[in-house]
Amino acid sequence: MTAKIADFLRDSRPATPCLVLDLDVVADNYRSLTTALPSARVFYAVKANPAPAILALLVEAGSSFDCASIPEIDMVLDAGATPDRISFGNTIKKESDVAAAFERGVRLFAFDCEAELDKISRAAPGSRVFCRILTSGEGAEWPLSRKFGCEPDMAEELLLAARFKGVEPYGVSFHVGSQQRDLAQYDAALEEVAGIFKSLSAKGLDLKMVNMGGGFATKYLVDIPTAEEYGRAIHESLLRHFGNRLPETIIEPGRGMVGNAGVIQSEVVLISRKSANDNRSWVYLDIGKFGGLAETMDEAIRYPIHSEHDGGETQDVILAGPTCDSADILYEHAGYQLPKALKIGDKVEIRAAGAYTTTYASNGFNGFAPLKEYYI
Amino acid sequence: MTAKIADFLRDSRPATPCLVLDLDVVADNYRSLTTALPSARVFYAVKANPAPAILALLVEAGSSFDCASIPEIDMVLDAGATPDRISFGNTIKKESDVAAAFERGVRLFAFDCEAELDKISRAAPGSRVFCRILTSGEGAEWPLSRKFGCEPDMAEELLLAARFKGVEPYGVSFHVGSQQRDLAQYDAALEEVAGIFKSLSAKGLDLKMVNMGGGFATKYLVDIPTAEEYGRAIHESLLRHFGNRLPETIIEPGRGMVGNAGVIQSEVVLISRKSANDNRSWVYLDIGKFGGLAETMDEAIRYPIHSEHDGGETQDVILAGPTCDSADILYEHAGYQLPKALKIGDKVEIRAAGAYTTTYASNGFNGFAPLKEYYI
Repeated sequence: MTAKIADFLRDSRPATPCLVLDLDVVADNYRSLTTALPSARVFYAVKANPAPAILALLVEAGSSFDCASIPEIDMVLDAGATPDRISFGNTIKKESDVAAAFERGVRLFAFDCEAELDKISRAAPGSRVFCRILTSGEGAEWPLSRKFGCEPDMAEELLLAARFKGVEPYGVSFHVGSQQRDLAQYDAALEEVAGIFKSLSAKGLDLKMVNMGGGFATKYLVDIPTAEEYGRAIHESLLRHFGNRLPETIIEPGRGMVGNAGVIQSEVVLISRKSANDNRSWVYLDIGKFGGLAETMDEAIRYPIHSEHDGGETQDVILAGPTCDSADILYEHAGYQLPKALKIGDKVEIRAAGAYTTTYASNGFNGFAPLKEYYI
Repeated sequence: MTAKIADFLRDSRPATPCLVLDLDVVADNYRSLTTALPSARVFYAVKANPAPAILALLVEAGSSFDCASIPEIDMVLDAGATPDRISFGNTIKKESDVAAAFERGVRLFAFDCEAELDKISRAAPGSRVFCRILTSGEGAEWPLSRKFGCEPDMAEELLLAARFKGVEPYGVSFHVGSQQRDLAQYDAALEEVAGIFKSLSAKGLDLKMVNMGGGFATKYLVDIPTAEEYGRAIHESLLRHFGNRLPETIIEPGRGMVGNAGVIQSEVVLISRKSANDNRSWVYLDIGKFGGLAETMDEAIRYPIHSEHDGGETQDVILAGPTCDSADILYEHAGYQLPKALKIGDKVEIRAAGAYTTTYASNGFNGFAPLKEYYI
């Protein structure tokens, strides 16, 4: 919660729920990440928050962009980036979308299977391609499935095959899982990638780039490594596994770029108990799982929640959203406590809410409008 | 899949993903429900699908409407309903929204705690109120939490207190859980409600109405009771527990009114395996958890999926959506099989998708546009 956000909320009194995001924090995060990893090229993961103000700031600062779709690519181009600063990082693309990206000048594409590589070779000839490999994602707070990536053996075969498909096999990518606080996960993944580099080099293919994805954490309730700590750990792992033949590197921070820059202000709609001897209060907010807080799914991401009553005596609560959906509960098992003095009509601040909120909000479920956004 | 939908898809060839909904099926469902429960007043649960074409049809057919918010109330009024056909059924309402509904002529409100009752007494004086009680929801496919409703003892106290708060204590509501296939759940709930009616009658308060909520199922993969079976079971339970003093009754079908009327057409974006000896294929569609299929959360709602290859040899698949989100997996454990002949670029039909899809879709997550809708 920055002074700028506090002032805005006090002076403008916007209707709730709303996200207020301090662009200075994004600029700070960009500086911290580039300082911590000076040799890495930063590709902002647009999906975390595609607000034009954020994209314009990052274009100006010198960032590149990891895009998931043609609309995201167009947003980045509209913000003033040239197409050489764009990676089409989604491994699941319609061939018509590969062609549309190529037509816009994009020349860097992700893949993780032969069919996707073939689409790129047909629709984006001559482009650089990188193959995503599977990693375990242990330690990440947001679940990492096997949805993206292939086993390293398959990655080697596909990268070798790419040479004969009219594209340039450029590198390997991995993702350690979003909100990854265990730095050892980067080391394990880089060891795997270095193995692929060595194996392919022996077969005559010298890869050039490692895309280390995202994973850079936002501070929610527990402490996280600093950008310097991420940078140092990654740098040491690169030296350990690649020696003096360091590859080009890419990072794709999303949450780590914008998460801590935003605060959602919400209003308490109702506080109740289910019976006379109920030992927990239900606190219902005017934002829930379908209004922007989708990452509370399985209570995975645990936002800090503050109010003017901070410091007073607290009680156990169950937090829920305003929709008529039984599944719209934010926290029931995570052990949230809120001040006893909190009452209906009070405002609460949901902090570190700058990433994965506005675009996760539903398209009017229960008639509730999408989350309002202010970039200051 | 009706002939009308099949013809539309064949002749119009809409871009995917899209929902195509046959309004004739909605009209049929309305007729079936009113025929099966002739004494119950039908309040369509607008949140299931608030498309203007559906609301207009139901206004014309004579339905009333269960609304979750002021925007939903306005949609229903815009469709031509008078406010006496509207219930503000959300138990979590801002007092300003209660006032806004009252100002529009709405006179029927739900509550489940004293604070909410007080809001209604202040902002909607003289209105009819009904108290929602907790039920177990056993047997429902979509999870029913303790989010809505209070224990029956508290309901009795609140309804008695309502007499002195300038509102009319009118009845009791319950909800057996969405997609409820176990008819005995209605009996258990009605027994509980009848107990409240008797107890309050002895204390001088004669309630008039039982709101039996929704729960009426849509056929996905397994068979469901017919409208007649729901009607017969409910009618027998009402006779058993209320004898010859039958209360007014309300039902609030949402899924049961529109679920089976809609088909989502989607395109296969990618089919892949993660390694040479992977024993399951990943099938990636152009719609996923964030594009409208949110009810695949925990693989709760299992949609039938069809293609032109139906009848051919099948294989085990994992189904996933197109976003760069690891959590965007539709079915991994539910045992889905799809034809081996299915290939990239083919269309698939996701059936029984008329409810809880369009408005659950995210507001552009990963840049993907909201689900397109056609009402025919």
